[in-house]
Amino acid sequence: MADGQVQDIERDEEDWGLDPHAVEAILEAVEAGDSARLAELLEDFHAADIADLLEQVGSEERRALLQLWSGEIDGEILSELDEALREEVIEYLPREVLAEAVRELNSDDVVDLIEDLEGPQKDIILEALEDSDRAAVQQSLTYPEYSAGRLMQREVVTAPEHWTVGHTIDFLRSEEWLPDQFYHVILVDPRHHPVAYVTLGRLLSSMRDVQLRDIVEEGFRTVRVTDEEGDVAYAFNQYHLISAPVVDEEDRLVGVITIDDAMAVLDEEHEEDILRLAGVGDESLADRVLETARLRFVWLFVNLITAILASVVIAQFAEEIDKLVALAVLMPIVASMGGNAGTQSMTVAVRSIATRDLTVRNAWRVIRRELAVGALNGLGFGVIMAGVAAVWFGVPMLAAVIALAMVLTLVAAALGGILIPITLDRIGVDPALASGPFVTTVTDVVGFFAFLGLASVVLL
Amino acid sequence: MADGQVQDIERDEEDWGLDPHAVEAILEAVEAGDSARLAELLEDFHAADIADLLEQVGSEERRALLQLWSGEIDGEILSELDEALREEVIEYLPREVLAEAVRELNSDDVVDLIEDLEGPQKDIILEALEDSDRAAVQQSLTYPEYSAGRLMQREVVTAPEHWTVGHTIDFLRSEEWLPDQFYHVILVDPRHHPVAYVTLGRLLSSMRDVQLRDIVEEGFRTVRVTDEEGDVAYAFNQYHLISAPVVDEEDRLVGVITIDDAMAVLDEEHEEDILRLAGVGDESLADRVLETARLRFVWLFVNLITAILASVVIAQFAEEIDKLVALAVLMPIVASMGGNAGTQSMTVAVRSIATRDLTVRNAWRVIRRELAVGALNGLGFGVIMAGVAAVWFGVPMLAAVIALAMVLTLVAAALGGILIPITLDRIGVDPALASGPFVTTVTDVVGFFAFLGLASVVLL
Repeated sequence: MADGQVQDIERDEEDWGLDPHAVEAILEAVEAGDSARLAELLEDFHAADIADLLEQVGSEERRALLQLWSGEIDGEILSELDEALREEVIEYLPREVLAEAVRELNSDDVVDLIEDLEGPQKDIILEALEDSDRAAVQQSLTYPEYSAGRLMQREVVTAPEHWTVGHTIDFLRSEEWLPDQFYHVILVDPRHHPVAYVTLGRLLSSMRDVQLRDIVEEGFRTVRVTDEEGDVAYAFNQYHLISAPVVDEEDRLVGVITIDDAMAVLDEEHEEDILRLAGVGDESLADRVLETARLRFVWLFVNLITAILASVVIAQFAEEIDKLVALAVLMPIVASMGGNAGTQSMTVAVRSIATRDLTVRNAWRVIRRELAVGALNGLGFGVIMAGVAAVWFGVPMLAAVIALAMVLTLVAAALGGILIPITLDRIGVDPALASGPFVTTVTDVVGFFAFLGLASVVLL
Repeated sequence: MADGQVQDIERDEEDWGLDPHAVEAILEAVEAGDSARLAELLEDFHAADIADLLEQVGSEERRALLQLWSGEIDGEILSELDEALREEVIEYLPREVLAEAVRELNSDDVVDLIEDLEGPQKDIILEALEDSDRAAVQQSLTYPEYSAGRLMQREVVTAPEHWTVGHTIDFLRSEEWLPDQFYHVILVDPRHHPVAYVTLGRLLSSMRDVQLRDIVEEGFRTVRVTDEEGDVAYAFNQYHLISAPVVDEEDRLVGVITIDDAMAVLDEEHEEDILRLAGVGDESLADRVLETARLRFVWLFVNLITAILASVVIAQFAEEIDKLVALAVLMPIVASMGGNAGTQSMTVAVRSIATRDLTVRNAWRVIRRELAVGALNGLGFGVIMAGVAAVWFGVPMLAAVIALAMVLTLVAAALGGILIPITLDRIGVDPALASGPFVTTVTDVVGFFAFLGLASVVLL
């Protein structure tokens, strides 16, 4: 059993993510310039893991690795690679290696690969493609970025409505061009409108003379070529779809989106939300220092404006602070609690908007709930801080002031935290990106104003 | 074309999420007590949408709706329902309706449904199951929560290694018990160890006399029954898996996990990360006010401790503030910038740990990068704030003090933002949950201490 344990641990490292020992061995081979050993070590790696490896090593090591091994780079690695590194890696590749790598990919992966590249690199890749593939890629690029049209693959397996299972199987056996992965046969009418689909499992387990139309799946849904990819990912997750036919403006079938692509989009959208909420743009670990600093600077600058605004409020009460320095000691507590309570409400609101759980219907109920939570916690922390202030400074009225300020600030935080994301969403601004600074402004200004204002009225 | 636009909008509402008009109509039917109309309106709704509807209406409306319609509730709706509401909804259901609903579900869905229920409700559901299903569910419940064993379905389609395509198709046509959705036929050896799999697409497009072993898929991976569901979701996303066989300690096949379940886990893990980073536990909109307030109170209380710590630092400099009230006006700016910069670094670190992009290998490079970014932005904002302070208060040395404090604070924020999550992860604490308060403590304490300390040395 002890033996089983050891095996368990080794296995885990091997299966999930990169094994640190393997990475060490690879880097040693790179340093030794041993291309045979390198090729041997990398042979069993999945393309996604090789892409991760390239992202995790330093730029010197990356260059050395690519030079020693570039002949073997395939298209799948390129499409797994973080966008921030793609250009750099493509630079290192000899033109014929790049062309070869790209020719292996499905059209949707080529689109994903080149949509963010600059002119010359884009042209090299387009030229490398066969004529029909190039036309398909260029057609996809005419759809808006982040649309279903960019996400779909154009290779679709269809059958006329009147076919039988046997007919369909014979057709599939005779075709050479079938996609690597497909999960449904889509039934189309004579005008190429998709009308239903049959799962491959049903097809396999039905007798040859069964009509396709008798074994179609319930809950058939199509996606518009112009739908946003985020909406598509939502639909896959909500309705447990495995693949969805994509139709054009005239409802004709133009492609199909499969769940692995939808899962990748869901993952990216979450990543975007989480980073935007923290004021980090579309940053990745592979970005360079200057680019990272620039992206973060923008958001910190917005924060600086709100912080200066809060300081202007404080400056109005300079006289009061001069008379009672305890105010300066305690005021950051009120603002900090407000900021954190506001972030709590805001994050729940932003998530609920993203998951369609917060709607016009229930907005009022949610707002009332946030208000009640804010008032309750405001009272709780008001009492606690009154105690702390009374013991610390021995001024009973100061305790009363901070208690009342805490209630007001936490109620304002709750209101700001829910109303600001809802409003931003209503006017078409991404609430994950823009809510933070507004909420902080509300909580800082209300926090300092309530505490210092009450103090000036009650205490001085 | 104008017509197409209108259609487009209506279609969008219909396809993605709940149509507000339909919701209105449903609630009118509930209010009128018109159960025929209600059943008619709900007929075309997907179970996931009905679950969303139940989550979004008020508790009065929910109760009325369930009483009018409870005969029709099926198991799928129950398993789509937010955990916070399941118990409540199950309470309303007549025992026989509940039993009927549960009998329709696959074993993995029953497990998901009952694992969070209390004793009596759990027993009712277990009793409602057929003997073999009950045994399967109880077996699954012996695996740890959040393990692959809980996630998998036990219905698996297998074939011996030596079968041909024709043999397999005949077998599938003769079996009655096949799962609703399956994507691979898993090849097993005589001891029931999975050795490879064949996609249904390959099976359908190959001739009857082809050997299964000649058309197996590359990149075959298995999952241990004890693996964490988060690791499983990572593997599905990283390696574009559609389904993965689950094996026990002796490498015997015990179940299979499909991508739709992995996608749901990925979604939940993201949700958890985003809410935990904001100091909101496992909160949902369906939680009651008191429960929500309690969950948030805990985190705000931790924040209160760090805020009081910061105030203790300020109190050490009460004399200096008394002499120069401008210090009280400016000090929150330094702390606020530090807090936000720290949150940026921390969020990137937490995400990179979750996506396995931040590892032992590249930790030092990432730390150096964060330091450089912190120093750069510290210099930038130091210069800006020096200008603001000089213009505002006309004290050149105050400008120098705030500039230097800003550099120190933003460097500390960068270090804290990266080192704290790494350390927490290393000692086995979820960095998304626990990093925030530590990072805020560092930035607050360093921010106030640097600014006020420098001021006391240089200015006074």
